[in-house]
Amino acid sequence: MTTTKAAQKRDQAKAEYNAFLAACPSRQLLDRISDKWVVLILCALGGDNSPTQPGTADAPKAMRYSEISRLLAGVSQKMLTQTLRSLERDGLLTRTATPTVPVTVSYELTDLGLSLHHMTRGLRNWAQTHMDEVLTNRENHDARTT
Amino acid sequence: MTTTKAAQKRDQAKAEYNAFLAACPSRQLLDRISDKWVVLILCALGGDNSPTQPGTADAPKAMRYSEISRLLAGVSQKMLTQTLRSLERDGLLTRTATPTVPVTVSYELTDLGLSLHHMTRGLRNWAQTHMDEVLTNRENHDARTT
Repeated sequence: MTTTKAAQKRDQAKAEYNAFLAACPSRQLLDRISDKWVVLILCALGGDNSPTQPGTADAPKAMRYSEISRLLAGVSQKMLTQTLRSLERDGLLTRTATPTVPVTVSYELTDLGLSLHHMTRGLRNWAQTHMDEVLTNRENHDARTT
Repeated sequence: MTTTKAAQKRDQAKAEYNAFLAACPSRQLLDRISDKWVVLILCALGGDNSPTQPGTADAPKAMRYSEISRLLAGVSQKMLTQTLRSLERDGLLTRTATPTVPVTVSYELTDLGLSLHHMTRGLRNWAQTHMDEVLTNRENHDARTT
């Protein structure tokens, strides 16, 4: 009975989250996950390392800091470190430090991170799949308006 | 035969887009769509106006500028106007101006916009559904590290 009441209370709270509202915590969470580095880190740890065949993605895997940094071309060390820290704090990934010399640090998605990875994989695939269409739309738009 | 060759060429080009690469156009497109205002505008025009029951979303619909502005609490006029303009240029929505006094401007998702809406709806729902879990993770993390 207690469990049911607790679950009811939780469901009620969940139902009240609404990212359309500026003061809702879910607005801030949406802001955090709507970020290209978050999307790309989740894609990397989710195993989407095969750029040419999205359908043949590898399985999720642990990756070292340096591997992620190499895969995400152009990310600054500061940005990568900060983003990995927030993702760890939010429980989307775990950070494991192995006491080698120098210390080996690796990152792995949690189940929560994996559930978000389904969306971020979709976003990246969407951008890659519809790139040509968007480029054509931009050209047509610019031709009409100039 | 020509169609097949053209399609093959297009598929080849598509296969080459990779958002992991800094210079790939799809990286810039991913950056543009990984934005909370883009996500919320697409959710609004996609008809996800029922905050409490994501499953019972309305159908996509045309909305006036003022309606979008009211629904997306906290968005500045400058940010909303800029974001709507890029979405129009990319072909994700259409803008229709009706010559009333004052002019009535309304926005509606294109098919391309609708295809992205599936992802943005997922992102917003994810944020709202997992908010409690993320809050608990943050508390636990902060308790461990301080």
